[in-house]
Amino acid sequence: MEALQIFVAIFILALASSLTFASDPSPLQDFCVAINDPNGSVFLAKADDFYFSGLHIHKNTSNTFGSTVTPVNVAQMPGLHTLGISMVRIDYAPNGGLNPPHTHPRASEVLVVLEGTLHVGFVTSNPDNHLISKVLYPGDVFVFPVGLIHFQYNIGNTYAVAFAGLSSENPGVITIANAVFGSNPSINADILAKAFNLERKMVKNLQSKF
Amino acid sequence: MEALQIFVAIFILALASSLTFASDPSPLQDFCVAINDPNGSVFLAKADDFYFSGLHIHKNTSNTFGSTVTPVNVAQMPGLHTLGISMVRIDYAPNGGLNPPHTHPRASEVLVVLEGTLHVGFVTSNPDNHLISKVLYPGDVFVFPVGLIHFQYNIGNTYAVAFAGLSSENPGVITIANAVFGSNPSINADILAKAFNLERKMVKNLQSKF
Amino acid sequence: MEALQIFVAIFILALASSLTFASDPSPLQDFCVAINDPNGSVFLAKADDFYFSGLHIHKNTSNTFGSTVTPVNVAQMPGLHTLGISMVRIDYAPNGGLNPPHTHPRASEVLVVLEGTLHVGFVTSNPDNHLISKVLYPGDVFVFPVGLIHFQYNIGNTYAVAFAGLSSENPGVITIANAVFGSNPSINADILAKAFNLERKMVKNLQSKF
Amino acid sequence: MEALQIFVAIFILALASSLTFASDPSPLQDFCVAINDPNGSVFLAKADDFYFSGLHIHKNTSNTFGSTVTPVNVAQMPGLHTLGISMVRIDYAPNGGLNPPHTHPRASEVLVVLEGTLHVGFVTSNPDNHLISKVLYPGDVFVFPVGLIHFQYNIGNTYAVAFAGLSSENPGVITIANAVFGSNPSINADILAKAFNLERKMVKNLQSKF
Amino acid sequence: MEALQIFVAIFILALASSLTFASDPSPLQDFCVAINDPNGSVFLAKADDFYFSGLHIHKNTSNTFGSTVTPVNVAQMPGLHTLGISMVRIDYAPNGGLNPPHTHPRASEVLVVLEGTLHVGFVTSNPDNHLISKVLYPGDVFVFPVGLIHFQYNIGNTYAVAFAGLSSENPGVITIANAVFGSNPSINADILAKAFNLERKMVKNLQSKF
Amino acid sequence: MEALQIFVAIFILALASSLTFASDPSPLQDFCVAINDPNGSVFLAKADDFYFSGLHIHKNTSNTFGSTVTPVNVAQMPGLHTLGISMVRIDYAPNGGLNPPHTHPRASEVLVVLEGTLHVGFVTSNPDNHLISKVLYPGDVFVFPVGLIHFQYNIGNTYAVAFAGLSSENPGVITIANAVFGSNPSINADILAKAFNLERKMVKNLQSKF
Repeated sequence: MEALQIFVAIFILALASSLTFASDPSPLQDFCVAINDPNGSVFLAKADDFYFSGLHIHKNTSNTFGSTVTPVNVAQMPGLHTLGISMVRIDYAPNGGLNPPHTHPRASEVLVVLEGTLHVGFVTSNPDNHLISKVLYPGDVFVFPVGLIHFQYNIGNTYAVAFAGLSSENPGVITIANAVFGSNPSINADILAKAFNLERKMVKNLQSKF
Repeated sequence: MEALQIFVAIFILALASSLTFASDPSPLQDFCVAINDPNGSVFLAKADDFYFSGLHIHKNTSNTFGSTVTPVNVAQMPGLHTLGISMVRIDYAPNGGLNPPHTHPRASEVLVVLEGTLHVGFVTSNPDNHLISKVLYPGDVFVFPVGLIHFQYNIGNTYAVAFAGLSSENPGVITIANAVFGSNPSINADILAKAFNLERKMVKNLQSKF
Repeated sequence: MEALQIFVAIFILALASSLTFASDPSPLQDFCVAINDPNGSVFLAKADDFYFSGLHIHKNTSNTFGSTVTPVNVAQMPGLHTLGISMVRIDYAPNGGLNPPHTHPRASEVLVVLEGTLHVGFVTSNPDNHLISKVLYPGDVFVFPVGLIHFQYNIGNTYAVAFAGLSSENPGVITIANAVFGSNPSINADILAKAFNLERKMVKNLQSKF
Repeated sequence: MEALQIFVAIFILALASSLTFASDPSPLQDFCVAINDPNGSVFLAKADDFYFSGLHIHKNTSNTFGSTVTPVNVAQMPGLHTLGISMVRIDYAPNGGLNPPHTHPRASEVLVVLEGTLHVGFVTSNPDNHLISKVLYPGDVFVFPVGLIHFQYNIGNTYAVAFAGLSSENPGVITIANAVFGSNPSINADILAKAFNLERKMVKNLQSKF
Repeated sequence: MEALQIFVAIFILALASSLTFASDPSPLQDFCVAINDPNGSVFLAKADDFYFSGLHIHKNTSNTFGSTVTPVNVAQMPGLHTLGISMVRIDYAPNGGLNPPHTHPRASEVLVVLEGTLHVGFVTSNPDNHLISKVLYPGDVFVFPVGLIHFQYNIGNTYAVAFAGLSSENPGVITIANAVFGSNPSINADILAKAFNLERKMVKNLQSKF
Repeated sequence: MEALQIFVAIFILALASSLTFASDPSPLQDFCVAINDPNGSVFLAKADDFYFSGLHIHKNTSNTFGSTVTPVNVAQMPGLHTLGISMVRIDYAPNGGLNPPHTHPRASEVLVVLEGTLHVGFVTSNPDNHLISKVLYPGDVFVFPVGLIHFQYNIGNTYAVAFAGLSSENPGVITIANAVFGSNPSINADILAKAFNLERKMVKNLQSKF
């Protein structure tokens, strides 16, 4: 069993460092826990591998966008591995808390509003770039198709909360503005100036802020 | 466009009668709405195709099991088609409201508790039939792997509510007791007597109740 | 090559302990043998990795249900890994040999009768729970869709034999009565009493028998 | 319901003419029967959709190769649609009955011998082209990975029979010699002469025989 | 056959209007042509269904970005349906021709440079937003993983040309700047101001230009 | 990190020896590089993992078939792992350079001609074995469906070049004549004589040449 523990330790390291070899589809076992206690004496799948707590807590939204995403994916809950599902809680500050335009490269997302009033939308691909949007109230559900740019915006004067299910154990998030203007290293400013129809100076300024 | 409308009408009929030809994987378009207004004059994907309302409402749980499942899958929200995700709300009566042992043949499920105290669990496949269970409080999350028998049971003296994401647009539900003892027509009582180690008379009695 | 052998040894351990990380889809190589001879000096895929013998033998069916399943999946034939297929032989005692109601969480099954007379059936999901059944004679073929509860019952007065192909290298089996009443640890008797409309005492009695 | 019947009629036509639009993966319903009685008054999934008979019959093997394949795929059993599994029976004449080198472009195959003695094998892809072969006796099982060239050859002096499961509802068969030398229209003889290191005259001669 | 033609006509309409029901995975037939000649008298799969011409032509790049993409996907070549592959040619004007930052929601892309000198790159997902970039010369190959933001930029003083293969019959393209600032209708300027750290007036100005 | 390096070293060994355990589907990370520098001190995904050079070079075609295939798959470009795409360059000698009849067991292929005049074709599966062929000129594109036998033949008196995209990181190649007549060890000559309608002596002669 020691060899197995070494293996799962390596597996966790691999997961943690974004270098895993795994793939998303149908499981070959009932489940496939990626344990994170490689030094434990005996490995037995246990309830805690399939468990996470804390999604009832209102999160602090005192940040740039006025929103906080609390993910529950395979990094937080190892029992999700190979099961093709994960969850998030999103908190939005009153009067403009924003989950800014972003994509999930590996998942569609179905979102339900628990509190507050959210303006949500997604944009279809070229050539239409059709914005499909809706104002959501508590109990309303909306779906964002895989890979499309979408956002949620708190247009109410109260705090807002939403929960969402996503169709991957590790959906990934690409916040558009950050990936474009805040990459590390920076994208050539001439490229962004041309793409966004901005002056080069403005692009440099934006890049300095992200 | 009329031909298209006939097609989608047929498609909806097919969905409604459990005879569809579709398959679950990656979409070939941004989305693929299965509209249910075949007589409308113009078809344009609209926000309402991706929208559902009402999940904030406490449902009546005055029924046999003391629980009510409110699904939001492709039948309720046509925009989910090909996106591999859906959602449910589950209400549980105080003191024993039960979502009885069941399986989803086509989805894993990640569940979050909003209110109340739930004892939840799933049973692994043969030969172990290991019960993996946990008591969940508000904000706790648990995952039920695809195809395994699982349940939620309200062990608190207050009403309970949970939301769950499922990894299919149409997960399917097989309530074990109902499928076994309440099928239409009935399974031969000798089979069930032998399988469940019950007297034939008892099986007939059970079958008459479902 | 020694490192590789350690790896495959770990891999086999992982398989054996229900903790594998593998997934079911299309292979990336012609095949992918999970060898079980980690101490061998040289690894070469050999014919025996793709081979299993003994399915011609009539198995002893002197057991509770009067049936015996002989699986040929990735645990018996390592060359099946990543190929999405496996096989079983099933023997049924005369006059009531039963393969009791069960599901395969990861496979559909196509079965052919070689000897005897079998009453077979499966039950569709909620809300219909429609029993679709048939009496099969030698040479008859029937299919059980993935995840649905199904059974075979020998209604003849002779021994019966069937072979089946399954659409996964490791389909999994959940024998309903055993998973529900014989799990380890037991499911709370109140839950089963409510779900199956049985008295608590009866549930406890059933649980003691499984 | 008439519209639905038109649809399924179209669907069957599409299947029959090799032009279907369907894909192989996980079902979105319990099953998805492709009925072939579009003029029937009412459509209800029935047991016969999941049923096929006749695999017990010894088939005539008085043909060129001395073998006969009896398929049970979606064309014979409409209930197989979306389930990713099918079956065949193969009969081999004594002393050389041959299921000649062929591939299945969409399935792996697991085969069990019921009667006789078969020499079976498959060839791995470039650059090794390793032949992995075995002599099989009754009760022996062998697997042929998806897309690889394989064959079975009756080396006994008795009739032989095998059953096989395949990992697709419609695996497809490409008999190598027939596809290469017997295509319609013929492949340019210069191509085959060069590929097979044969004289052009010999190729033309072979093409005239297929 | 007329019914079939109506069906395929509907199918083409459906494809053309972004409302298809199809899915991307393994084919169930050798191929599955989506013909666009519904009035033809006889349907037979023909070579032209698998054929497209014109990728040798230097395209005019006198446009905003100084680049032109010529796609060969299922819309141009109906025989690609269900095959999970497509191709593009990209032409770049000298001195700054840009294929601006974009994503493919349904495909990875492998690109080879035929002429010119391209600076290419992609940005990884949150939280790293690591830019992985390279200068490519003729004969150089680079891969852009599914769903990630990527670009190509002609840094040479000559015309440039690249070809690319994509892992979907219909990869989709989301040009970031256009989808964000040029959607129809526009995204609320307050949202974009906050997301991109721009003044509202600047956002409105940008939106007026796209 | 050392453990991780050992793991990736093992992984590379596994890849190199055709024994990997990996599967082809959707990635679970942005990418998943299979590095080949296990002794390096720090692992960071770098641009070179996604890069390959040299496809602009005219390859020597002085060989038996007068053609040379230059692959760019996961063995050459580790960053392709889990991305489901790869590329090849093919060079053809004037006047009959031939990419002989072959299949890809795990990929469809879309090919574009850069120079020369190619007669290309593929053969459908049984029972039709329909040859679908076309003469291609520069800029022409053609697709070969997964698993079907296909070829390209230079019918011009000039050198020819084509590029192709394939729908797998590791498509595999089975050159029909080589796999059938040149396997190691050889297929029993009686089998090939019967399958190809050749005299046994001729088969032995062919086998000696491959």
